[in-house]
Amino acid sequence: MRRFNAFLPGLTMSAAALAIGSSDRDKPPNTAQVLESAQPSDWRRPDPANTLYLELDAGRVIIELAPRFAPEHVGNIRALVREKFFDGLPVARVQDNYVTQWGDADQVRPTEAARRKLPDETVIAWKQALPIVKLPDADSYAPETGWLDGFPVGIERKPSGQVWMTHCYGIVGAGRDNWPDTGSGSELYAVIGQAPRHLDRNIVLVGRVLRGMELLASLPRGSGAMGFYGDEEKSKRTSIRSVRLASDLADSARAPLEVLRTDTPLFSRYVEARRNRREEWFVRPAGHIDVCNVPIPVRDIPPRN
Amino acid sequence: MRRFNAFLPGLTMSAAALAIGSSDRDKPPNTAQVLESAQPSDWRRPDPANTLYLELDAGRVIIELAPRFAPEHVGNIRALVREKFFDGLPVARVQDNYVTQWGDADQVRPTEAARRKLPDETVIAWKQALPIVKLPDADSYAPETGWLDGFPVGIERKPSGQVWMTHCYGIVGAGRDNWPDTGSGSELYAVIGQAPRHLDRNIVLVGRVLRGMELLASLPRGSGAMGFYGDEEKSKRTSIRSVRLASDLADSARAPLEVLRTDTPLFSRYVEARRNRREEWFVRPAGHIDVCNVPIPVRDIPPRN
Repeated sequence: MRRFNAFLPGLTMSAAALAIGSSDRDKPPNTAQVLESAQPSDWRRPDPANTLYLELDAGRVIIELAPRFAPEHVGNIRALVREKFFDGLPVARVQDNYVTQWGDADQVRPTEAARRKLPDETVIAWKQALPIVKLPDADSYAPETGWLDGFPVGIERKPSGQVWMTHCYGIVGAGRDNWPDTGSGSELYAVIGQAPRHLDRNIVLVGRVLRGMELLASLPRGSGAMGFYGDEEKSKRTSIRSVRLASDLADSARAPLEVLRTDTPLFSRYVEARRNRREEWFVRPAGHIDVCNVPIPVRDIPPRN
Repeated sequence: MRRFNAFLPGLTMSAAALAIGSSDRDKPPNTAQVLESAQPSDWRRPDPANTLYLELDAGRVIIELAPRFAPEHVGNIRALVREKFFDGLPVARVQDNYVTQWGDADQVRPTEAARRKLPDETVIAWKQALPIVKLPDADSYAPETGWLDGFPVGIERKPSGQVWMTHCYGIVGAGRDNWPDTGSGSELYAVIGQAPRHLDRNIVLVGRVLRGMELLASLPRGSGAMGFYGDEEKSKRTSIRSVRLASDLADSARAPLEVLRTDTPLFSRYVEARRNRREEWFVRPAGHIDVCNVPIPVRDIPPRN
């Protein structure tokens, strides 16, 4: 079927699997084949205490928080969520090829539990003991890249000794004023375009979207400065129904999902399959991959056999 | 105003200009300041014979075709447009963080003027005489990058002697079957996410979106394989009202716009301002830029003084 195994190849496993013919049996595995060979231990279940459900009219966006990278911000976001701070606030900004931003844009909503000022958490200290999985490929913005706790990272061992989450598609950060310690987590954004890596180490990143990016990325763009909705566009603003921590919900209300681990041999094979695409459609494998071009698979927890 | 000079900086010139204070007068210019210093000769007007108007219910998408890169494809697209081939066809595929694709997905619409089979035009030959402006920064996918005729390019002088347009946000290509000579231009796509540079030299690129990317990027994603709309989602499909060449329209019906030239000293200053962001918000300029992170400004032709 031309429509499914042709044109631009996608990430859909079933579609890619359709392209596998008998002549391919001796080739290195493609993405679909690598994922099909994954064992249950190659997947992990995100901690419900680090999992946010952002409920929009269009559906649920699931965000995994990254406490190792920004513990104070993550703690503050948890406090805000628990006092239902975000409920009813709008998505105030959608700038094409850049970010979707939601929360308390005007800094007017009171909060009892959360702090307004937090330390700068744009980087963490590099240590040998950090369980970073390196991407061997060169990066143009950072000396080294890889993954830590499933999040993409840049690494500069010397001179700064810093590790930071990289601004890839779907990464979530905390909006701020003109200094890195002026964000509180009361306003958050997700990257919806080309990785704005020039923001790395300039602003605190707090997690990434696991599910529902298409809901944030397909919102109408704001026509005001920097993609904010203008006063005449208030009707375009999507309202946040609620934000909840998965750990505050009953088991039955939680989304049963798993994320591919990044610290396994299988993940290395997955990266290799993405680096050199083996699907029939490709005539020239790139032989290279950028850390922001490696999507981390998420799936529903499969039924027990 | 926190809302306009804070949070994440954007591309909006007026917003960035607001952040310029007297203490900044000795600094290198920021993006807004560089653009404000542009002369009329720093801008060019795209050739109407290479300018497509893709009319959707939501508005007009303007595409500049790139005849130097894919002359046969561009010629075929012009022939298709002139017989109104695209009118009434759908946007058939919207895959999140990848592409929006429109045209004759099922290859069923007859055409008299256009060809179904074209030569592979994924690359052009490198020559000293090509007016390429190099980006000095390292690229991770190509030995060298730069711009040619205002389009981003990858360059491999040796061993292949090839130049090709790079898959950046907003670049437009011709969908194809499993071989590079199987696209005809009857189905086109635009990149709506992280640059899929692994597609470079695998598929023919024909131009880029100058205006209206937000219309293509904010369409609802298809839930079928590879982002195609499933049969039960036909109602989500956006219909193409028409596609026309600007040169086939009266002057009064053309959009009066200009594109920043990429072959000027001003453009080099613009790239430098993007490489090291000088806006007050930034605490750490990146000192580097990727060819896909340099948006090429487009503006309305200003009124004559």
